[in-house]
Amino acid sequence: MQHTISILVANEAGELSRIVGLFSARGFNIDSLAVGETEDSTLSRMTIVAHGDDRVIEQIMKQLDKLIDVIKVQDLTAEDEETIERELVLVKVNASASARSDLMQIVNTFRAKIVDVNQKSVTVEVTGNQSKIDAMLELLRPFGLKEVVRTGTIAISRKSELARQSQSGKQEKPATAVKKTKKVKAK
Amino acid sequence: MQHTISILVANEAGELSRIVGLFSARGFNIDSLAVGETEDSTLSRMTIVAHGDDRVIEQIMKQLDKLIDVIKVQDLTAEDEETIERELVLVKVNASASARSDLMQIVNTFRAKIVDVNQKSVTVEVTGNQSKIDAMLELLRPFGLKEVVRTGTIAISRKSELARQSQSGKQEKPATAVKKTKKVKAK
Repeated sequence: MQHTISILVANEAGELSRIVGLFSARGFNIDSLAVGETEDSTLSRMTIVAHGDDRVIEQIMKQLDKLIDVIKVQDLTAEDEETIERELVLVKVNASASARSDLMQIVNTFRAKIVDVNQKSVTVEVTGNQSKIDAMLELLRPFGLKEVVRTGTIAISRKSELARQSQSGKQEKPATAVKKTKKVKAK
Repeated sequence: MQHTISILVANEAGELSRIVGLFSARGFNIDSLAVGETEDSTLSRMTIVAHGDDRVIEQIMKQLDKLIDVIKVQDLTAEDEETIERELVLVKVNASASARSDLMQIVNTFRAKIVDVNQKSVTVEVTGNQSKIDAMLELLRPFGLKEVVRTGTIAISRKSELARQSQSGKQEKPATAVKKTKKVKAK
C-alpha cells in the first residue's frame, strides 16, 4: 500500500541522509520526497511517499521516531479524505502553433497555467493530487513530453491540531509528544 | 551562493541516499530537495537547492556525475532569467470569521487558493518562486501560522533541448552526454 509520511525534523547536516537511508536499508522504494522549510526556520518538514508492506512501514516509522533530530512522524495516508495532498509539476510539451489550441483546452480544463512559450514548445505549471496530475500528463503525452519535473506530494491534515492531539490513532502517538518535550529540554 | 541543481537519475533503491550523502559528507546544507517521477517511468528527477562555496558545489557535481545511476546533472541556478523556478506551499493559518476578509485579500493578491476552511483556520495553497512564497508567508505570519508544508523548489530551463546541447557552458557538459551513451550501451 502507498503511504504518505510527514516528518518534522531539526535542520542538522546529515539528518536527511540518515532518514533516507532508513528506507533504503529496508529495500523500501521512495516514490517521491519533498523537503522544505516550515513555520519555524530551525525545522524542516519532509513528505515521503513510499509503497510497500504496512508492517515494514510501521517499523520504519518507529525507527524514524528514535532519531534525535526527528520531532514528529505522522502517517498522513489519505484513506479517509481527512488529508489534503498536492503536488506541483512543470511540463515542457512539444507544441507547434497549430497544436496550441488543442493544448490550451487541456490547460484550461485542469486549471493549469502556461508559464513559458517558445516556437516549438509550451511549459505548463499545474498543481493537484496525484491522480489529477497523472490524468493531465496522460492527455499531454500524445503532444510529446519533452521534460517533466514533479515536486512529489506534500500533505496537510484537515483536522485542527487539537483534534489531532485528542485522537489516539496512528496520526500522533502520545509517546511522540512526550519525547518532543524531552528533546526540547535537553537542548 | 545558492545553487539549484537538477539531477536525472535511474530509479534504483539507495541512489537517493547516496546522492544526499555526497552533500552531507562535505557539510553542504541542503535547503530543499524535491524528487518525483519524470516523462520516463524508469527515471526520477531531483531538484536540490543548496548554498555554499562555488568550488565545493562544482566538486559535488563532478562526484554526482560519476555515480552509475546518475544520467545527467545540471546547475539551473537562475542567474540569467533562463530558468523557471516554482515551489508549492500549503499553509494552515489561524483565521476566525472576522479575520477572513483580510486573509482573502492576501490570498487574491497572490493568486493563491483556499483549499480548506474550518472554524478556526484556513488552509491556503500557493505556487510561485521562492521570493513570492516568502513574501506571502511574511504577510500571513501575523495571523498565526499553524502549519507550513513546502515542496522545495523545482526548476526547468526556458531554453529548448537543442539550444542547450549546442551550448558549451555549465548547463550540459559534452562529457556528460558521452557518458550517458556509454551507460545506455552497458545496460
